[in-house]
Amino acid sequence: MQPAPPGTVDGEDITPAELRLAARNHGQPLEGLRHDITPVGLHYLLIHYDIPAVDPASFALEVDGAVERPFRLTLDELRARERVDLPVTFECAGNGRTLLSPRAVSQPWVLEAIGTACWGGTPLRPLLDEAGVRPEAVEVILTGLDRGVEGGEMQSYRRGLGLDECAEALLAFDMNGMPLPPQHGFPLRLVVPGWYGMTNVKWLTRITLEDKPFEGYHNAVSYRLTDAEGVPGEPVTRMAPRSLMVPPGVPDFMSRVRHLEPGPVELSGRAWSGWGGIERVEVSTDGGESFADAQLEEPVSRAAWCGWRFEWDAPPGEHVLCSRATDSAGNTQPLEAHWNLGGYANNALERVEVTVASI
Amino acid sequence: MQPAPPGTVDGEDITPAELRLAARNHGQPLEGLRHDITPVGLHYLLIHYDIPAVDPASFALEVDGAVERPFRLTLDELRARERVDLPVTFECAGNGRTLLSPRAVSQPWVLEAIGTACWGGTPLRPLLDEAGVRPEAVEVILTGLDRGVEGGEMQSYRRGLGLDECAEALLAFDMNGMPLPPQHGFPLRLVVPGWYGMTNVKWLTRITLEDKPFEGYHNAVSYRLTDAEGVPGEPVTRMAPRSLMVPPGVPDFMSRVRHLEPGPVELSGRAWSGWGGIERVEVSTDGGESFADAQLEEPVSRAAWCGWRFEWDAPPGEHVLCSRATDSAGNTQPLEAHWNLGGYANNALERVEVTVASI
Repeated sequence: MQPAPPGTVDGEDITPAELRLAARNHGQPLEGLRHDITPVGLHYLLIHYDIPAVDPASFALEVDGAVERPFRLTLDELRARERVDLPVTFECAGNGRTLLSPRAVSQPWVLEAIGTACWGGTPLRPLLDEAGVRPEAVEVILTGLDRGVEGGEMQSYRRGLGLDECAEALLAFDMNGMPLPPQHGFPLRLVVPGWYGMTNVKWLTRITLEDKPFEGYHNAVSYRLTDAEGVPGEPVTRMAPRSLMVPPGVPDFMSRVRHLEPGPVELSGRAWSGWGGIERVEVSTDGGESFADAQLEEPVSRAAWCGWRFEWDAPPGEHVLCSRATDSAGNTQPLEAHWNLGGYANNALERVEVTVASI
Repeated sequence: MQPAPPGTVDGEDITPAELRLAARNHGQPLEGLRHDITPVGLHYLLIHYDIPAVDPASFALEVDGAVERPFRLTLDELRARERVDLPVTFECAGNGRTLLSPRAVSQPWVLEAIGTACWGGTPLRPLLDEAGVRPEAVEVILTGLDRGVEGGEMQSYRRGLGLDECAEALLAFDMNGMPLPPQHGFPLRLVVPGWYGMTNVKWLTRITLEDKPFEGYHNAVSYRLTDAEGVPGEPVTRMAPRSLMVPPGVPDFMSRVRHLEPGPVELSGRAWSGWGGIERVEVSTDGGESFADAQLEEPVSRAAWCGWRFEWDAPPGEHVLCSRATDSAGNTQPLEAHWNLGGYANNALERVEVTVASI
């Protein structure tokens, strides 16, 4: 047997370091998928370092770098600009990480790292236009106020985003109609529809235009799709299509295996993709051997998940339920994940174990 | 070496079953201790089964059993009663569980299972008086709408509480000034100041007076302080005193070890006890060898934690910081926990590892 590559471990058990992250961060219990808009506190949360304490009165956003007119905006000035409220589905790039083997040692997600909030904010692009983007600018560097040690260096959380990817981006100060809670980036965060969650820099304090791609840790080292250390691979970008199910019946406390009565039951869930609209969701009640089409609902917004429903006449016995999403770009969820070193973008089918019996 | 008792495991690694719970439930990142009132979404959350979907329009609370006049109350009727808003500190009885060895296989808390919310509701006792408690009644059985399989049986989450413990209990419909979010018991939950969190039944739908102590699973089997299987031991009741620290400096992403600059730093945190007010908090900067008094703040309410502060001139090197609470009943946190089978009420001192160096 090959030893596990650096930064990964074999086996199903979770190390104390992973547990420390799991105790801070959290997913969305999947019964929360019944909500079009995820209530605050059920939305998944991944905080790289600490939640910073920010005084909104002295807070300002700086816009600088390769622009004609660098400026700063207070929170009041940001709130006075054009406002957009848009439900956007977020998924952590590491969602499904612990279902890969060997697995990257990081936040040990199972499948709950998802949520859809209604983000209220102002579009990014007009603000860049007012600053006057210089011709040589190609990328926008977004810096958060959260700081920590990672990859052996003290750093702020910081991401680069191509200028052409800013068209739909929002600078959000509200979540579900209220000011951002501290853990979701108060007082200001980025929201980029369709991209994995690491893109949506929280506690955003600076936007810097650069004339070359950003080589910081969270673009160049972390969030890469690569099969071997030292090979840069491809950056993690948009969300691969995925469907998840509202767990039917009731759970066993420890195993979370579902118990339900024989007979008709409506299965339901949510599907989304960062590459296009959801065109099809299929359901399997035999662990992925065969599939039948589910009924699709309208998406919650142009940037959010859509609901689906499927009638099942549950026969007694043990079953494995799956659902499979296909998007308008022709991407379909795989039965098995393509392994990668960081444990990113694992959109293999969910497997929901159910026991059907008269209780 | 003795084998680990039934229901427990040796070693630091977390099993997949524990991880499934950790992915749903969540603690409060400890930097959240800076808030007097924990923002929704940062408050810890332990859900035994699933979050039930409740229609508030058809919801009613039943009061029955050993009472003269059984009745039901709608949510509007509950909201029209006497109202109390009270900040109350909650802690899960299993907080600190993974720091015990061998450890009970259950929700794998480190130390984050805490929070203080401002609960808005109506007092329980007057409502019982209106129902007319019969002389033979000794206990109140509280039933939630959450159902699941545990201990091999299908059950609702249900707890018994002695009648004499109801004096301060609230039936809460608001949290921090808003209707309860689904995951915290919408539309109604119990709040019993001073007791561990399992007492505070969520999605409360029925209150039944009984003439004998309740023998249901979550009183008679679970939430017991016992050192051996089959020995009933004592029930878990009020919160043992505890102090936790706002982590100073900045974290390492994976290890969560703290990095800070040499020189003066203000350490701070929160302390509470279910047995009385906090009379003293002491801080150790040498891993519990020596202690000095911290400065105490007024408690946030009669049922909530109090803040503390301590000036430290951090010398370069590696240090372990601790804080120790003593309550008005004379209880003091121990250096080492008393082990028990369920991993409950572990209030041994927190140990915060810090690296002090010029960065």
